[in-house]
Amino acid sequence: MTEDDFRFSTVIVRPSEAARTAARERQRILAKPPASLGRLEDLGSWLCGVQDACPPRPLHRVTVVVVAGDHGVARQGVSAYPPEATAAMVRTVVAGGAAVNVLAREVGARVRVVDLAVDDDLADLSADVTRWKVRRSSGRIDTENALTGEEALAAFRAGMAVADEEIDAGTDLLVTGDLGIGNTTPAAALTALLTSSDAVSVTGRGSGIDDAGWMRKCAAVRDAIRRGRPSLGEPLALLATVGGADFAAMTGLLLQAAARRTPVLLDGVVSGACALLAHRLAFRASDWWLAGHRCTEPAHGIALDRLSLTPVLDQRMNLGEGTGALLALPLLRAAGAVLAEVATLEEAGVRTDTAGSLRSDHHDREGSSGSTTGDHS
Amino acid sequence: MTEDDFRFSTVIVRPSEAARTAARERQRILAKPPASLGRLEDLGSWLCGVQDACPPRPLHRVTVVVVAGDHGVARQGVSAYPPEATAAMVRTVVAGGAAVNVLAREVGARVRVVDLAVDDDLADLSADVTRWKVRRSSGRIDTENALTGEEALAAFRAGMAVADEEIDAGTDLLVTGDLGIGNTTPAAALTALLTSSDAVSVTGRGSGIDDAGWMRKCAAVRDAIRRGRPSLGEPLALLATVGGADFAAMTGLLLQAAARRTPVLLDGVVSGACALLAHRLAFRASDWWLAGHRCTEPAHGIALDRLSLTPVLDQRMNLGEGTGALLALPLLRAAGAVLAEVATLEEAGVRTDTAGSLRSDHHDREGSSGSTTGDHS
Repeated sequence: MTEDDFRFSTVIVRPSEAARTAARERQRILAKPPASLGRLEDLGSWLCGVQDACPPRPLHRVTVVVVAGDHGVARQGVSAYPPEATAAMVRTVVAGGAAVNVLAREVGARVRVVDLAVDDDLADLSADVTRWKVRRSSGRIDTENALTGEEALAAFRAGMAVADEEIDAGTDLLVTGDLGIGNTTPAAALTALLTSSDAVSVTGRGSGIDDAGWMRKCAAVRDAIRRGRPSLGEPLALLATVGGADFAAMTGLLLQAAARRTPVLLDGVVSGACALLAHRLAFRASDWWLAGHRCTEPAHGIALDRLSLTPVLDQRMNLGEGTGALLALPLLRAAGAVLAEVATLEEAGVRTDTAGSLRSDHHDREGSSGSTTGDHS
Repeated sequence: MTEDDFRFSTVIVRPSEAARTAARERQRILAKPPASLGRLEDLGSWLCGVQDACPPRPLHRVTVVVVAGDHGVARQGVSAYPPEATAAMVRTVVAGGAAVNVLAREVGARVRVVDLAVDDDLADLSADVTRWKVRRSSGRIDTENALTGEEALAAFRAGMAVADEEIDAGTDLLVTGDLGIGNTTPAAALTALLTSSDAVSVTGRGSGIDDAGWMRKCAAVRDAIRRGRPSLGEPLALLATVGGADFAAMTGLLLQAAARRTPVLLDGVVSGACALLAHRLAFRASDWWLAGHRCTEPAHGIALDRLSLTPVLDQRMNLGEGTGALLALPLLRAAGAVLAEVATLEEAGVRTDTAGSLRSDHHDREGSSGSTTGDHS
């Protein structure tokens, strides 16, 4: 991994500052008050930076990569669903009936689900889904390692390979998605380890567990944190100890996307934990990511804060699959379209009093402002 | 107006509670954890209620109605732009180059701009735009009435007529938009009057004024509040005193839409002030409205709070034109699609342990939770 460490931290460069600056300057001459589109202007500038183009190109092929995997810890009562639900939901995604499929169709994105460690051989599904499988279920992280070192590396490289495949096929924006009963438990543990948080502050209700379930989950997260701490300096070892094959793959995908100068729209708490890890391996990588939303899992807010990423949306969602990120896509597309299509002040024939400034000069109004306050009836 | 008062308060009924309940029940059996789509589930239920259908129908014709008007107070240095910018921007909207046009194209909506009181005869534009014009510029509200009583009624009825035209043409969702240099000043004054707020707490930076401009605007709002207070019990008189033709039209549109059982997506601070007024005339009307976003003008948050409307988005926007509301449209469409297209848990083959509940029963896990806390290494 040391070799990969080295590779990513040197290969990943910053997005284009020149394009970003050009975007900011263009926002200022468009037919609207300066900064009046708020966050949308920031999104437009970010898009220009990652595309190295101003105005930005429309996003033609947006792909959600849903990493799927089971987790041994799910058998400890940390989820409201039985582990078998993971395989059923993978099949539902392939059939096009999951929430991620519906939202992707609405916003014009493709969905690809990749099985890394589902506890089912999924023999009925195509190799496109199962080719990268590392094992059946990652280990129970509160008492055993999720993966061997070899499995962690294989999963990490699988994520890189999937990023390469999608980017080579023309994907101009990747969206991260996750699917796996119990996966918010390793997400919480990894986030706690990488942000020096305690188990109680990172553990959420996940799929909707009750108080007793939350206590069991807290205990599992606490034990995983204790097990993971010695591996804190070694991201791949950390993934093997308290992550899982799906987490290793998403981490590899995030880094390879940044290395390939392809922007990524991040989803929820699983994406957040992987982003923290990927950021450790290459701190410039986070410039290529946009946080689509903040989910209700407490670990997610902590991770985004540490990454200095401001989520676009906050809609009280915690479904995973990439659903929250997808809802931010129309805003990102709109931000790009504003830069490409809105008329300039000059084209609109809106007079501004000074060449460089859009603020009008009030000197001829100062006199009348006395009457504003004086002539009232 | 008394007669119109009476008419709206009796004609406007509540959206269908049965369809709303059916939506909530359907959300619970879809292949996702309960409530995991957060606000999106609320939006879906609202859409079912206003359509009286579950699942809801896709929105086929969404129309932004941009009410345009000038305001005498704009000559008092309360805006960063000269009043002439209103006419220029109306022409830009007609030409398709304004921010509202670009965002509408992105999210699949139509734009119609209606001149109520632009200070330009706009003779080059079609009757579709100018037919409802009431006068050239509404009066300077800090020292004189915005409109006569007859003009206020004409503008109010123009808004009703535009709502009728659009609904008759098949519009299934109206979006409110506003265009007019200086229009955040009457919006602030109306909001202050209708929420018992003071001038300082409702006055914002509008198009981006400096401190001196903000002080002038505050004084104008204060004087308008004083002038408007005697009319507080009479919505149409209030519109004539401290509103404007564009405000009267939007208020008429909001009420007629509710009377015609057509949902409305509200934009910013001008929409908020008109919604407060319309709500006074018929308190049930607000059930037909969705607050698309909260803009940065302080009066807007105060108005939404009073109306008990929770904005979908908060992107630090304050452009007006309907731009903020349009960005909420993809979320509303997605919410509808979720109800119509996501597979049920049963279709997805996800086992739930009890028929009525989606929570799995933890009784067989309680035993192992001891080892969760005890077997860590």
